[in-house]
Amino acid sequence: MAEFNNVTVVKKANIYFDGKVTSRIVQFADGTKKTLGIMLPGEYEFGTDSKEIMEILAGELKVLLPGETEWLEISGSGEFTVPANAKFKLQVSSVTDYCCSYIHE
Amino acid sequence: MAEFNNVTVVKKANIYFDGKVTSRIVQFADGTKKTLGIMLPGEYEFGTDSKEIMEILAGELKVLLPGETEWLEISGSGEFTVPANAKFKLQVSSVTDYCCSYIHE
Repeated sequence: MAEFNNVTVVKKANIYFDGKVTSRIVQFADGTKKTLGIMLPGEYEFGTDSKEIMEILAGELKVLLPGETEWLEISGSGEFTVPANAKFKLQVSSVTDYCCSYIHE
Repeated sequence: MAEFNNVTVVKKANIYFDGKVTSRIVQFADGTKKTLGIMLPGEYEFGTDSKEIMEILAGELKVLLPGETEWLEISGSGEFTVPANAKFKLQVSSVTDYCCSYIHE
């Protein structure tokens, strides 16, 4: 899906890590939420509240998912899922464009 | 307006200057278009096709508008207008969140 129709976009960005990670909230008619974001090269740790599905639209990065010892490599496009209430680490090596879906189960 | 309702958002980001400037396109039911973007500290020159109204939502920057010799300073929030087919310069000193409206006259 190249675009999201009939959505609400929160105007102000979420800004993390001095602007190296930024995102905007997209709300859907069914009450679900996604964020569209950009991560610049760097190392980050994030925590989840709900389950998250991270779709990588462009970029190069490695992901260390909770409970894993091996980094998952993503180049260009890919997807990974993080459970609720978990932490995960990212090593971003080129500008990464992502779409994060928040899944309430 | 804190959010845009009933809009279409293009999923993929526009990425400029190695990711130091990024934006996403928001399309409105009336056919108009805005971009929501982030600029990291740096110096940039942009060119316009249509007239643009740049609303600064957060950040610190100086703007040199076409034909001007004095830089306009914006801190926190502000707005400036750039005519169509013109160039303007920005000196961004802290992470800047913006909303750009494209005006076809």
